[in-house]
Amino acid sequence: MVKNKPSTRDDYIVFSTITTRWFDNDVYGHMNNTIHYQLFDTVVHEYLLKQGILNSESGSTVFLVVETGCKYFSELAFPDVISAGLKVRKLGSSSVIYDIGLFRGDAVQASAQGHFVHVNVDRVTRRPVNITDENRDKLKLLM
Amino acid sequence: MVKNKPSTRDDYIVFSTITTRWFDNDVYGHMNNTIHYQLFDTVVHEYLLKQGILNSESGSTVFLVVETGCKYFSELAFPDVISAGLKVRKLGSSSVIYDIGLFRGDAVQASAQGHFVHVNVDRVTRRPVNITDENRDKLKLLM
Amino acid sequence: MVKNKPSTRDDYIVFSTITTRWFDNDVYGHMNNTIHYQLFDTVVHEYLLKQGILNSESGSTVFLVVETGCKYFSELAFPDVISAGLKVRKLGSSSVIYDIGLFRGDAVQASAQGHFVHVNVDRVTRRPVNITDENRDKLKLLM
Amino acid sequence: MVKNKPSTRDDYIVFSTITTRWFDNDVYGHMNNTIHYQLFDTVVHEYLLKQGILNSESGSTVFLVVETGCKYFSELAFPDVISAGLKVRKLGSSSVIYDIGLFRGDAVQASAQGHFVHVNVDRVTRRPVNITDENRDKLKLLM
Repeated sequence: MVKNKPSTRDDYIVFSTITTRWFDNDVYGHMNNTIHYQLFDTVVHEYLLKQGILNSESGSTVFLVVETGCKYFSELAFPDVISAGLKVRKLGSSSVIYDIGLFRGDAVQASAQGHFVHVNVDRVTRRPVNITDENRDKLKLLM
Repeated sequence: MVKNKPSTRDDYIVFSTITTRWFDNDVYGHMNNTIHYQLFDTVVHEYLLKQGILNSESGSTVFLVVETGCKYFSELAFPDVISAGLKVRKLGSSSVIYDIGLFRGDAVQASAQGHFVHVNVDRVTRRPVNITDENRDKLKLLM
Repeated sequence: MVKNKPSTRDDYIVFSTITTRWFDNDVYGHMNNTIHYQLFDTVVHEYLLKQGILNSESGSTVFLVVETGCKYFSELAFPDVISAGLKVRKLGSSSVIYDIGLFRGDAVQASAQGHFVHVNVDRVTRRPVNITDENRDKLKLLM
Repeated sequence: MVKNKPSTRDDYIVFSTITTRWFDNDVYGHMNNTIHYQLFDTVVHEYLLKQGILNSESGSTVFLVVETGCKYFSELAFPDVISAGLKVRKLGSSSVIYDIGLFRGDAVQASAQGHFVHVNVDRVTRRPVNITDENRDKLKLLM
């Protein structure tokens, strides 16, 4: 799994800027632990859509999430602006393991980091399907 | 209530830029109707925090929401960037009615617009308390 | 719009029981105002699915939300169990106005109540389409 | 971490019943991967509140989440009713590792399972504090 000390910006290839929302904060006045996963979902899909890897409405294959995880090092909270770094740790025949780091504003060390495992499946049968060479090339840009 | 044709940017005083998230989209591939209210909540609280009107952790008064509403004119969806316009429509002794418009990117016409009614209450008793003159002045900047 | 004093259970025809979640509570330790709309969405769709009125995956028409609103009378909070009452206030040729009341546990008076306006549209063109007689009959059961 | 094949009901000590919501479903028509964590958060806090282990408003210590993870075996979707099983895998001096399984209706095998790591900290300084003997006894009931 992800290492136990915070990653830094150098560990990631592309970044998304994500604004926080009032109701990201829970009763403790900080970002609830489930919101981090919304941000993981967002940075991954932003890349997939920009690169044309995913067509969630009409593609013959879709990506299903089979595993996720997150380590929380320091608190994030509205109104922080988050910088979410993304890289591909491992590219299998039909699966991708992404690593994501969430940085508070300009911080160098991640406040939280996690992994996100996608499997490419047939939209109807939900059986694994090999990722096409074209899409593999686009995902390798994140390695 | 809010009028029945879309408002325009000229109808609002300040704007917040809010990024959308993958899971703002529901099964129809567009922003679920409940997310608009998360954005209302955000633009209002961003103003209150920036102006020092609200101290959600230790102030003796807090704002409670007593009414909200939204009209939806056109679909918003991830990965749209939203511009949220804010104004104060009415300032009572202990209450504020905000109008909010949600604009897709640079659009001139709102995709959705709504209202949001806050009552200033004592943190413990939850009874209405007059808004201080200092805070009234800051809220009048939105009229 | 909805009246200004809390409705009672007698004002609704069918009820859904909905459990609350830890992260329904915001920094004030009560259910955030946006969650009420998740519950409205849920009670309406539960009826539509049970009655076979909606097929969100493959029907030729879908319902789009064009207006919602909520009045908040008293606080709800995790771990409350919510009883959500539903009725149809008005049935147009292609639109439905629902009234919804949210009751805390066995309470007789609603803690919050709102309306939810659906328009039946073509899945592709998103133009209004008359509700079928069969579906009108099912919706009239809520009047 | 959690094992790679689905756990069964026998693997957990207490269960919470959680209703799903229309907007738990994302564009794929199934429960979005982030919702599972809302359910983890809920089953853990339901136990903590019921047992009087947590007083989120005024206790001198609170629990912070330092790590979470989930494996997804089969899809859950609104309107499923979820049974969430909970146990304590490990009880440290100031930390607790919970294992949680999410079961669709009466299913024997979990659709998803995960872990959730809490650290008991001082509310103000956010430094780790030993869990009291009284609370340890209540947590041991889950082992």
